[in-house]
Amino acid sequence: MPYISLSNEQPGIVGLLRYRPDTGAILNQLAEVLLRGENTLTRGERELIAAHVSTLNSCEFCASSHAAFAAAQHPGGADFVEAARVDPDYSEVSAKLRALLQIAGAVRRSGREVTPELVEAARVEGATDAEIHDTVLIAAAFSLFNRYVDGLGTSLPAGASYYAESARRIVEYGYAATTAMDGADA
Amino acid sequence: MPYISLSNEQPGIVGLLRYRPDTGAILNQLAEVLLRGENTLTRGERELIAAHVSTLNSCEFCASSHAAFAAAQHPGGADFVEAARVDPDYSEVSAKLRALLQIAGAVRRSGREVTPELVEAARVEGATDAEIHDTVLIAAAFSLFNRYVDGLGTSLPAGASYYAESARRIVEYGYAATTAMDGADA
Repeated sequence: MPYISLSNEQPGIVGLLRYRPDTGAILNQLAEVLLRGENTLTRGERELIAAHVSTLNSCEFCASSHAAFAAAQHPGGADFVEAARVDPDYSEVSAKLRALLQIAGAVRRSGREVTPELVEAARVEGATDAEIHDTVLIAAAFSLFNRYVDGLGTSLPAGASYYAESARRIVEYGYAATTAMDGADA
Repeated sequence: MPYISLSNEQPGIVGLLRYRPDTGAILNQLAEVLLRGENTLTRGERELIAAHVSTLNSCEFCASSHAAFAAAQHPGGADFVEAARVDPDYSEVSAKLRALLQIAGAVRRSGREVTPELVEAARVEGATDAEIHDTVLIAAAFSLFNRYVDGLGTSLPAGASYYAESARRIVEYGYAATTAMDGADA
């Protein structure tokens, strides 16, 4: 049971986005631009950064959701994502993505944990300024999303198929579809 | 010196919002709705929540900025804000605001630190569901902003008068003005 009355039965962040549609639309737009907008990082790589931060924050709804979204869009699929979201040193992670995941992990703890050495290590592996920027902002955004979801005690979905179904919708329609689903409250 | 080349000389988050204007506009909109939109919490109270989280996160740019914005809009002025942003138990803080600041402090650490007891304590002091929701989302949003500002190693303004000048602009024109200032790069 969420800590406040949401007037809808949707789990996780979906219930919150519907509870306050004005901030909901803004937060959806942020996810859309960061995770699906034009970028030299693939959608799968960006969703993995989101899943990694959410996993370390023990935010079950966000971690399961973005792991499913990453698995649906990364060529490594679910096996790759399940290993990499816990451990950036997993052997199948590319050197550049590993360095970016290290930066994301530092941001998760505190912005002040990001060091010139971590940034330089990513640059050595070919990361651009824009990629470093977006990694920091994605990790910071999930520092928001994870706290929002858990700080209001939102509920989990009834069945595990929820995440795969969300992934299907997001890959096809994008983040705006999470709050505009026909009859999804039924 | 920021960790990446921003192509502008603006300090703190302002340089970042200009570096990537698409996410910049979204983040400004989030601040505008949460901190200045219609609400039963005053603008001064909401800015104090932002200043409290930023102070605990040791994010100097955000803490100094939102302390100045709170001081400009809270009847207690700068003396009140300087004490209250460090210590929610400061005697001049109302019982309701104190309970909301405790929730914000918990969110800052982790969404999972918010307990039914903290929420109930705020309710007993008269906080509504919407006020509890907005407190959690403001604290979560500053968990993003603080990490974004420090995670990219942004610079501080040259003079301390910067924050009071920003406060004057924000009170008069709102958050959109932070990235749309004529000649502010000069």
